[in-house]
Order: sequence, then C-alpha cells, then structure tokens
Amino acid sequence: MVRENEIRKGEVAVEMPPTMDAGLMFIGRIHTPWTSRLETPRQGRADGPLCHIEVFEPWVAALDSLDQFERIEVLYWLHLSRRDLVMQSPANDGTSRGTCSLRSPARPNPIGTAIAKLVSIEGSIVTVRGLDCLHGTPLLDLKPDRELFKPVAPPQPGDFQVGDP
Amino acid sequence: MVRENEIRKGEVAVEMPPTMDAGLMFIGRIHTPWTSRLETPRQGRADGPLCHIEVFEPWVAALDSLDQFERIEVLYWLHLSRRDLVMQSPANDGTSRGTCSLRSPARPNPIGTAIAKLVSIEGSIVTVRGLDCLHGTPLLDLKPDRELFKPVAPPQPGDFQVGDP
Repeated sequence: MVRENEIRKGEVAVEMPPTMDAGLMFIGRIHTPWTSRLETPRQGRADGPLCHIEVFEPWVAALDSLDQFERIEVLYWLHLSRRDLVMQSPANDGTSRGTCSLRSPARPNPIGTAIAKLVSIEGSIVTVRGLDCLHGTPLLDLKPDRELFKPVAPPQPGDFQVGDP
Repeated sequence: MVRENEIRKGEVAVEMPPTMDAGLMFIGRIHTPWTSRLETPRQGRADGPLCHIEVFEPWVAALDSLDQFERIEVLYWLHLSRRDLVMQSPANDGTSRGTCSLRSPARPNPIGTAIAKLVSIEGSIVTVRGLDCLHGTPLLDLKPDRELFKPVAPPQPGDFQVGDP
C-alpha cells in the first residue's frame, strides 16, 4: 500500500535544487488531535476539534490585538512532506496532475495555509478550529483573514490602479 | 519621513533568532507594475492590473491542470521586509499593534499570500489579477483557492471529526 512518501504510478519527481534561497524560523508549534498522516483531515472544517497553537518567545508579544478577528490565517511548515514531485496521483489510480493544481502537502516549498476560526488567545496559546495538520506541525505565521482585514496604513497609488486598457 | 525599514514610534523589535529551521527555494519570480514599496497596493484587487508569474524549471510541469481554477492562491517571499518587529505602527501615529494582527509585509517569516484571479497559463507564465507585491518578488508556491478545491485523495478519519464534546 502506497500511502506516505513512496512514489505512486504516474507521479514524477525532479532532482531537488538547493533550498537555500531564504531561511525560515519556526515561531511555534501546533497541537492537534492527529498523530498520523493517515488520520489527518484532507481539509479542516469550521466545526472541527479544538487545536492549540503554541507561540514561542520572542514572538508572543506579536499576538497583541489578534483577538479582534473572528478568523485568522495560519501558515505552517509541512515538515514530513517530500518536496520533489511535479506530478502527483492523489487517488493512486494511475492518473496524475501537476502539483500546483493540488493542495497536497507534497510541494516544492511545503507551506500549509488555513483559515481557522479563532476561539481564544491566552498568553502564548491561540485556540482555533478548522485545522487539518499533524500534531507537532511547526508554525510559521498567524495573520488576520484577508476578508476581515482593512489596512491601517494609508493607501498608496497602487490601491487605485485598475486593469490594463 | 519614516517609510521603509526604519523603526517608528511605538514599534518594538526583538533580537532575531537564527532563520535556519527550514530552507526555501524560489520557484519563480513575479512581474508586477510596481517597482517601489511606496507605490504597491496595500491590498490587491480582482480588477487590478495584469501581473505575470514566471515559473522556473524544473517546476513548470507542476502547472499542469492548474488552469481549471478560476482563482489561485499565490505564496511569495517578501524579500525586502524586516523580520524582527513584534509591535508595529502602520499609521505611524504613535499607536501600535502586534505583528500577527496585521497583514503588513514585516513579519518573522515574511510570506505573502494572495488569492488571485487566473487569466491564463502559457508555458511557464501564469497571468493573474489581484496581486499587491513588488516587481521581482520571489515566488514560493501556487495552489488552487481553497474554496474551489475538492480533495482528489480519498477521505481520512479526521475529515469526519467534529468539535469537542
């Protein structure tokens, strides 16, 4: 049974270029009910179980004022995923599609993004619903849902620019 | 005038931890009309100008089947942003808020996410509307808008799991 990192029929891997164009730091860790990739949801749901996002120092101060948003965008690092697939066969049925046409965790830069429902923020712990990642997933960022956020900074010329003639 | 990387009144910077927890590679480059951070939109708009996302090899094959989605999620690296601010004053008026409560480009891991309207894919060039980044911004990933994507892989137990009792 082909379920985790093996290559399936129809999948195409490339030789990986170096991954040193930029460096990430993990600013926290996500606690979820799922400890196996064979159990995690394919997609989070707004009525899903509570998940706890632990934010590490020195970043806890950055949570200030996040509690005014009902939904937040969570960026995380899919640390167990292979990065070299350009074609994938998610159904493992011999058909395959380009990696960019999927939301599979296997991607050249395995960054997951989710819109989660904010439940509470207590100290360094942000509690949400709607995630679909493994327990222990490294956190990259938290920001307001783009649909709820209005820029605080003054507008710039590009804000008023519409499509090409 | 405080406009680019200077610290403003009310802002708080921390000593930066190392950024070596994971490494990124740039899989392309984004061509937009904006060459100065003082011109770029604060937020993209669906009727904004055409922008061209150039995808580098060996990742062009990964674009297969992306053209079936009307909107795509674009992840990019905000390469000019400072990363050490925990409190920011976007209006530069002495008031400040936590970095996570803003969609400012200055963040510990400066990853931008946008939902863009897909116009066309020709070879290695993906043309979209709705971006708000500088010309030359490095590309990290492209994936279908989560609202348009249905998983191809079979469901897993977590997909059916709802909130805590």
